[in-house]
This record gives sequence, C-alpha cells and structure tokens, in this order.
Amino acid sequence: MAPDAQRPEPSPSQQRRDRERAEARATILAAARDLARTEGWDAVSMRRLADRIGYSANFAYRYFKGRDDILLAFVRDGFARLADAMSAAGGSLEAATAAYLDFALDEPDLYQVMYGLGGVRVPAAATEDEGAGVGAVIAGILGVTDPYDDRIARLWATAHGLAALHAIGKLPVDRAHLHKLLSASVADLTRGTSNPRGATS
Amino acid sequence: MAPDAQRPEPSPSQQRRDRERAEARATILAAARDLARTEGWDAVSMRRLADRIGYSANFAYRYFKGRDDILLAFVRDGFARLADAMSAAGGSLEAATAAYLDFALDEPDLYQVMYGLGGVRVPAAATEDEGAGVGAVIAGILGVTDPYDDRIARLWATAHGLAALHAIGKLPVDRAHLHKLLSASVADLTRGTSNPRGATS
Repeated sequence: MAPDAQRPEPSPSQQRRDRERAEARATILAAARDLARTEGWDAVSMRRLADRIGYSANFAYRYFKGRDDILLAFVRDGFARLADAMSAAGGSLEAATAAYLDFALDEPDLYQVMYGLGGVRVPAAATEDEGAGVGAVIAGILGVTDPYDDRIARLWATAHGLAALHAIGKLPVDRAHLHKLLSASVADLTRGTSNPRGATS
Repeated sequence: MAPDAQRPEPSPSQQRRDRERAEARATILAAARDLARTEGWDAVSMRRLADRIGYSANFAYRYFKGRDDILLAFVRDGFARLADAMSAAGGSLEAATAAYLDFALDEPDLYQVMYGLGGVRVPAAATEDEGAGVGAVIAGILGVTDPYDDRIARLWATAHGLAALHAIGKLPVDRAHLHKLLSASVADLTRGTSNPRGATS
C-alpha cells in the first residue's frame, strides 16, 4: 500500500473547518479552565460551559463527548506541559524534579485533575500512558530506557507525595521547604544508588 | 474549681443510652463501609444507609450530622488504625514504613477517604491533626519530637506517593515491588542523613 500518496491534501474548505474546530475546542477549554479556577472542577458541566460562552449545550457537544472528555483533554495537556517544563529545566535530576514540584504548585487545579486529587473524579480512560512522558524525561537524564525504572518511580513518588500532601493541607510547609525536602531526597537517592555501601571512592 | 468531684456518675439509664448510641453508630458505620467497598464512596448517602439498615433516614441523622460526618469518622478511625499498625510493626524505620504501605494496599477504600483520592471528596474539617499520630510513630523511632521533622515528611511523601500513584493505576507494579521501592528510599535516607558526605567512618 502506497502511504501518503493516497491521502489527498485537505481542501481549502476542509482546512477552514479544521481551523474552526480547533478554535471552538480552545474556546470551550478556556471557559472550562476559568470555571475550574474560580468555582472548582465540580462546576464544570456542559450546560455551564455553554452558558459561559453564550452557545447552546449542543454546541459544546459537537466538540467534546461530555465533561469527561473535557477533563481528559486537560489531563493530556497537563502531562505534556509538565514533561516540557521538566525537559526545559536544564538537564540535571535536581532541576527536573524541582520543575515537577513547581508545576504542581503553580497549577494546582491542573495537578488536581491529572491525579484525581481532592474530590476531582478523573475520566476512567487509560491513565498509565499519560505519565510515561514525565518518566521519559527522567529516564533521559539517568541514561536508562525504562520510564518505570526504580529510581524514576521513587523520585516520582516522593515528588508526587510532597505535592499531593501539600495540596490537601496535610503538609503545612512553604514552597521553599518543599523544595528542600525534594532536593534532599534526590541527593540521597543519587548518593545511595551510585554508591550502595556509602563508601567514598 | 474542684474537678471530677462535681461530675456525677452516669445513671444506669444514661449508661444504657450511651451504649445504644455507640451501637447505633457502629451499625451505621458498618453499613457505610460495606456500601463503600461494594459500590464506592459515592454510593454512601444517608438515604442509602437508612435503607440498608432498615430504618428511616431520620434514624441515621440522630447519630451523624450527615454524609461528611460519617466520612470524617472513617478518616479518624483510619489514621488511628494506621498509627497503631505502624507502632505494632516492631520499632524499625523499615518495618514502620512497610506497615504504612501495607495498610494503604490492604484498605484501599479507607486510604482513599483518608487522602481524598480518586474522586472521593473528604470533609473540609481540619485534616492536619489526623496525620500527626502517624508522624509521631516515626518521630519516636527517629528519636525526635517534631512529627513534621524533614526526614518524616520525606518518608511520608514517598510512602504516600507510592500508594497514591498505585491506587490510581499510574504505577503498575506489584506489592513486592512497591515494598522494594520504599525500602530502598528508607535505606538511602538513613544512609544519606546519618552520613551526609557518603563517607564511611
């Protein structure tokens, strides 16, 4: 089967429809994010979104299957942006994990929906893939291929645990202190695994 | 003011009322736990509970202010039992943290409501105190007084992160593997903080 040769260029009218679709989705997502920020994710319903952008609920249903589909778009966007922020952080384990923590603290509403925290019910779609991109950044720094490498899982658990406990009010310390805790764990893990007996060379 | 002298012994009828009250609360909580186990916490409502135990909703309201009050009872009971399990584990950091992880894996429905995981909305009551007993067990082992000591916060974050990521399907490894990850972090933390330069004595 000849690959791309059989796929025609989109017509100008198809291109226009694609652009309109992307714009409509972006408008709906922006309204959802605003609602979530001001009133929490519970307030995000197809009816409320349609009211907010001045269209009928049918308009919103033309672009999203429902509320879960909208939340899933945020989950995917959130993990992609988190991986980007970690990639852009400079290539050290310490900087990448610090970028993870900053993302969680700067975008608490997104982090809630990415991890189903604080009463937010996330869509039941396969959620494993959504975290793999984050693992891949750390895997690249560590020079391993498995995004579920033990050291990655431990760093992820510590960073997520700090962010999640803080988000629900169980770890009442400030941002600098959270960074200090994460940084100490990164240092211990690096020292511990590279030097399992604790001996200097 | 003379203390206990002024407080009369409860009368036999008061004692009977206290006992009946305790029994009614236990019956309602057992029904709630059953419902949560089989249908999830969303199914736990005053109406469903009353139906289940064959009384009117008014009966349930005589013993609990509402659904949140019932969830709060589980949060308190959960943290108390978690602290007990950790205390009973034998006095080492490794055993106490392993007991934490086992509790989270053995009682996933309780752990969900204790930490507001997976769409469970926990009551907005002060939640800090509920974790302090858990921190106190680790503080005792480490010989410190602050239940929010940095090492305790880091261990808690790692153990909670492992349990929470696993609970929502983002860390698809088995129980033995979760224990291995936690145990490695405990070892690194102990080595790292007791021996900050990684040098042997």
